[in-house]
Amino acid sequence: MSSTEDLDYPQIILQYSSGFLVSKVMFTACELGVFDLLLESGEPLSSDAIAARLGTSTTGIERLLDACVGLKLLAAELTQAGALYRNTDISNIYLTKSSPKSQYHIMMYYSNTVYLCWHYLADAVREGRNQYERAFGISSKDPFGAMYRSEEEMLKFMAGQNSVWSICGRDVLAAFDLSPFRQIYDLGGGGGALARECVSLYPNSTVTIYDLPKVVQVAKERFVPPEERRIAFHEGDFFNNPIPEAELYILSKILHDWDDDKCRQLLAKVYKACKPGGGVLLVESLLNEDKSGPLETQLYSMNMLVQTEGKERTAAEYSKLLEASGFREIEVKRSGKLYDAVLGRK
Amino acid sequence: MSSTEDLDYPQIILQYSSGFLVSKVMFTACELGVFDLLLESGEPLSSDAIAARLGTSTTGIERLLDACVGLKLLAAELTQAGALYRNTDISNIYLTKSSPKSQYHIMMYYSNTVYLCWHYLADAVREGRNQYERAFGISSKDPFGAMYRSEEEMLKFMAGQNSVWSICGRDVLAAFDLSPFRQIYDLGGGGGALARECVSLYPNSTVTIYDLPKVVQVAKERFVPPEERRIAFHEGDFFNNPIPEAELYILSKILHDWDDDKCRQLLAKVYKACKPGGGVLLVESLLNEDKSGPLETQLYSMNMLVQTEGKERTAAEYSKLLEASGFREIEVKRSGKLYDAVLGRK
Repeated sequence: MSSTEDLDYPQIILQYSSGFLVSKVMFTACELGVFDLLLESGEPLSSDAIAARLGTSTTGIERLLDACVGLKLLAAELTQAGALYRNTDISNIYLTKSSPKSQYHIMMYYSNTVYLCWHYLADAVREGRNQYERAFGISSKDPFGAMYRSEEEMLKFMAGQNSVWSICGRDVLAAFDLSPFRQIYDLGGGGGALARECVSLYPNSTVTIYDLPKVVQVAKERFVPPEERRIAFHEGDFFNNPIPEAELYILSKILHDWDDDKCRQLLAKVYKACKPGGGVLLVESLLNEDKSGPLETQLYSMNMLVQTEGKERTAAEYSKLLEASGFREIEVKRSGKLYDAVLGRK
Repeated sequence: MSSTEDLDYPQIILQYSSGFLVSKVMFTACELGVFDLLLESGEPLSSDAIAARLGTSTTGIERLLDACVGLKLLAAELTQAGALYRNTDISNIYLTKSSPKSQYHIMMYYSNTVYLCWHYLADAVREGRNQYERAFGISSKDPFGAMYRSEEEMLKFMAGQNSVWSICGRDVLAAFDLSPFRQIYDLGGGGGALARECVSLYPNSTVTIYDLPKVVQVAKERFVPPEERRIAFHEGDFFNNPIPEAELYILSKILHDWDDDKCRQLLAKVYKACKPGGGVLLVESLLNEDKSGPLETQLYSMNMLVQTEGKERTAAEYSKLLEASGFREIEVKRSGKLYDAVLGRK
């Protein structure tokens, strides 16, 4: 970065400038079903064939495919009849809808909701608050009212969160040996992907997903199969309704939605409900104490500004919140991936 | 990309997903004047001081500054009184408004105009046309009518293009020895930054900027100082008005705005006007013949879909267009940067 050569031509700045182009190319190829079609077809296809099958313009799809080649999400083979396109391995695994590790739903949430909120980032920084009003014309006072403004939006959000746990869930649950905790509540457990990872990893556990009634209803109908007998549901608002007794509470990407006051309020309630010897597991993306990164987490903290009332925090900040609520023996495990784990005990 | 480790965790896909967050963090720090303030202050500042001076929220600006640290656009020093922020070298050179190589204006155009057009990329690919109607509620039939829909938008576009030539202009003009050509027309020369580079690099040349009357007027008033006597102006629409005789015509980022038919129509007109022994210089970002990249150019070609009637092309495609209009001895020089040069002779 500081060599003369780099200063002579701002490669890194041009790359940052093009970041949104890169995101939207990948999101759009997902949205239009390019990767699904190329997985199903079982053979490389021409841009004309892809345009015909997906009902798009030929001039648009060819350029989209070529940009995906540049991003190494597709490979192109030049034949006498023109270029033939196929998925790369990473696209088959992560960008097709049918893959168990599919990131399709989180991409759609990013592309259609988060992208537009971020158009108003300068306003968010000026005002210090989320931008639902500018982006979608809805009040920003109740972030989850805004995020769940329609069943469709709620579904997209829940499916998106489930995508995240398909690649990060196991690591955060295996960060500590949770096998002593059999009776677990996943507060704000949403679509249930983390709960399902949990009962799979800890065969003696049962997990109750505690979430808003409309979330629980959709989780039951769409995401958690009824034969999954070790997952139960509890309808409620954890700020305003009682939290039942349990051995372990998982708060996964919950505290980052709220300011310090609300976090302390929630943790105090959890501490009170928790069985002696029990604990709380925070799953969050941890900032370094010295402001050096991780970059992804710094970006997510900006996203919390744009979409919620919260922020990302350092391990020391989470420890302080936990201690203030009575939890002790606080341990932190960094996963090296997007999400980390912090365990506190009562 | 294809190692087992990479397939186990989709680092590259997460990076692509965050691309728009990265772009908007940099654009927003520019827009709010973070880099200008830190350049002027001459000393590192706290986030509270920066918030106070820029009139932003403290909670928003601190996170924006921290994300800029993660992007290495700022450096943070931790002191007992908290973190102090300063510009890195690359920010001083490229992100401050006052720097001769400032990219501020192109960033603002990207952030406020292009970003919103790209929200509708899926529609652009489906329909094969630009998205001014969805993004800004204005007809997409005349792209430059849409791009220049207000004097403010036109100014932003012209200033943005000038930013580009401040880092790429000299290379494309030095790609060939243009000193034999003394009488030069820059067709669609806009804000004149390339024309100014040209008369500086070739002391015996005079350059006439040929552009729409409203563009010429703004170029004279805002961008080209009157003491620059070797730059002249010609008001006109090069599709519908005559093109005067000259020795060299520069078409810099012009052909990429139009489809092949219109390109041939324009080049034929240029050929007819050109003095024998004269030539045409195309300045464009060239695609590789084998669809392998460059990625930036593939992304720009998508942007041409979203904003214009054109596309980026390969050297072979430009050569074919030039030959069809009568030009010969076509030479191609790749600059290794964003824009390349193609010279044809009459």
